[in-house]
Amino acid sequence: MTRHDSKDLRANEVVIDPPKARDAGLMFVGLVRTPFTTRDLCPRQGRLDGPDCRLELEPDWESALEGIERFDHLDVLYWLHESRRDLVAQSPRNDGTTTGTFALRSPVRPNPIGLSRVRLIRREGPVLIVKGLDCLDKTPLLDIKPERCAYTPPAPDKAADTA
Amino acid sequence: MTRHDSKDLRANEVVIDPPKARDAGLMFVGLVRTPFTTRDLCPRQGRLDGPDCRLELEPDWESALEGIERFDHLDVLYWLHESRRDLVAQSPRNDGTTTGTFALRSPVRPNPIGLSRVRLIRREGPVLIVKGLDCLDKTPLLDIKPERCAYTPPAPDKAADTA
Repeated sequence: MTRHDSKDLRANEVVIDPPKARDAGLMFVGLVRTPFTTRDLCPRQGRLDGPDCRLELEPDWESALEGIERFDHLDVLYWLHESRRDLVAQSPRNDGTTTGTFALRSPVRPNPIGLSRVRLIRREGPVLIVKGLDCLDKTPLLDIKPERCAYTPPAPDKAADTA
Repeated sequence: MTRHDSKDLRANEVVIDPPKARDAGLMFVGLVRTPFTTRDLCPRQGRLDGPDCRLELEPDWESALEGIERFDHLDVLYWLHESRRDLVAQSPRNDGTTTGTFALRSPVRPNPIGLSRVRLIRREGPVLIVKGLDCLDKTPLLDIKPERCAYTPPAPDKAADTA
């Protein structure tokens, strides 16, 4: 993780000394490839009519894509590997006013997991071509899920679903 | 993590020996409290008119909730701590047909991060009362984000947003 100094802070931003990570390790299942090779080139929010991006799965996980073509929209989770993790209150406008981290979609958060809803354009083997991302090129990929609105669980209902 | 035997597998489900987790440790920022104290009691999908659930933040992170009351809907990320992580193809109906893990919203995935869109009912200090969760009681909480549809970044646009 990139190291950060207190000089990175804006007025009134609040830092804590966060507890050490506990027993939940992630594995990277691939890489996100975008045209955004520097932070300045990243938009604040991805657009579903934006440039094509690529979700490149590692070979082990290619067959986990089976059946994904029938979904138009996906939730993509990725690891914002350059983000600091200790800000509780942030000042996005750098004007002295702050907002709590959980009321922002800033990449700076205790667990810097990015979440984008993307449009699936096509699959090419272990690669999905999608639109709607805003993250840096080469961001580690964590997970892909069908977007919930279009998703019906293939397993039968449980008692708890019909109660 | 719970240990799993090959006898947990259904017909045609595929297991790999996944790579070890790499350099991305998570920290739990609180606990999710639901009425679902066993897996059988968990619905397959949460309902926005379901029972009240609680997101209980650890004291360090309470002030990261500042400003969250203005959002009706939140994305909640949590750690499905009882899930196995090595299934590439799954058979939700247990009928011999399989679907790739990334084309399912099953809790069984390489990084068992649950994602629910919830309705915020109210805040009580370090606790958010929400509806729409389907996870086990005492699931570790990873992150809370305002739902994207209602969210406008408070920071000014960057060149990449208006290009």
